[in-house]
Amino acid sequence: MNYSQKLKKLSDAVRKRLESAPGCHDWEHTRRVLHNARMIADGEKKADMKVVECAAVLHDIARPEELKSKGKLCHAVIGSELADKFLKNCEFRNEEFIKKVCNCVKTHRYRGGHSPLLIEEKIVYDADKLDSIGAVGVGRAFHFAGRIGAKLHNTEKEALGSDSYSSEDSAYREYLVKLRHIHGKLLTKTGRKVAKQRSDFMHEFFRQLNREVYG
Amino acid sequence: MNYSQKLKKLSDAVRKRLESAPGCHDWEHTRRVLHNARMIADGEKKADMKVVECAAVLHDIARPEELKSKGKLCHAVIGSELADKFLKNCEFRNEEFIKKVCNCVKTHRYRGGHSPLLIEEKIVYDADKLDSIGAVGVGRAFHFAGRIGAKLHNTEKEALGSDSYSSEDSAYREYLVKLRHIHGKLLTKTGRKVAKQRSDFMHEFFRQLNREVYG
Repeated sequence: MNYSQKLKKLSDAVRKRLESAPGCHDWEHTRRVLHNARMIADGEKKADMKVVECAAVLHDIARPEELKSKGKLCHAVIGSELADKFLKNCEFRNEEFIKKVCNCVKTHRYRGGHSPLLIEEKIVYDADKLDSIGAVGVGRAFHFAGRIGAKLHNTEKEALGSDSYSSEDSAYREYLVKLRHIHGKLLTKTGRKVAKQRSDFMHEFFRQLNREVYG
Repeated sequence: MNYSQKLKKLSDAVRKRLESAPGCHDWEHTRRVLHNARMIADGEKKADMKVVECAAVLHDIARPEELKSKGKLCHAVIGSELADKFLKNCEFRNEEFIKKVCNCVKTHRYRGGHSPLLIEEKIVYDADKLDSIGAVGVGRAFHFAGRIGAKLHNTEKEALGSDSYSSEDSAYREYLVKLRHIHGKLLTKTGRKVAKQRSDFMHEFFRQLNREVYG
């Protein structure tokens, strides 16, 4: 089996696992993160593209476990252990390669002392963050609001005065509290450049929305 | 009671009725349509603002009846009958005024031979259509997809090959099939001008989304 065949087998296995995952961390999210990761790795010349690709495909593999545990388990930590098994099942044999990929999975959440240090780790982290902003981020925020039965829109005061998952939650709340700050957290030069464009687009979207509703 | 007090009483009654209406035809939608209607009426000098305001507030009053009948009853027709009662309950007494408002409600859907002819009727029709496009239209489309558990995004081919309310339904499908054609259907000069701007913004949104996902 050559690398392309192994990557295909790995992707099929992850797709099967995440296809019915609810909400915004399904297989489509993973596919977009892979797309982002390849784009960033192209800009960051020193990255090992194969490590980046496999890690992007595997980064959310333990989302179902985290969901089942109601957030007690961390999908990044459990995911890095699962990633090792998935890679071996797909005939990856190079221990050093496997370790690098698993570390990307472990550090992609930047929590609990597991922070991205190597360029491949930073790329996967940035690729995941990019999927939260821009037009995709806007779409995900409204899609989520629809899923939990929250409002379409509200004022800044209403949004900031409400809680996550409440009926006064909204895409605008998510934007104000979280999404508008994300671009400043990216770790690679290429990631930051793309994040700036997407973030500006998202700012313009909410300015336009407010003009339409209150202008 | 002066006009402002009557309009306030009318709005409160409609708000109470639509506050818990599901999805995209709740009180917030009516509030936005009222906002749009005032803006269009400002541009169309010959319109009677009071007729426009009352009709905008009342236009979706029979949505609950249409929903309960699973679409057998038309909310525009039933709504125009209900509007008469609501207006009289709120101490509107001028029969000619009431008839004008009820006709705006009846024709705002442009179906079954009830098409908007007077300027006030055209304004309410346009104000309602405007709420389907632009940033609000984008938000509503994703919010709806989330509510029915449909996809976040798909390709043009997948979107056009799927059915409404199916799991392959998406905001992009709604845009391709419906939303991108709406601005050409508006009836007033002011409505068309605003619709063009909002429609262009919406086109740019989906171009950006496709660039992010497939670019």
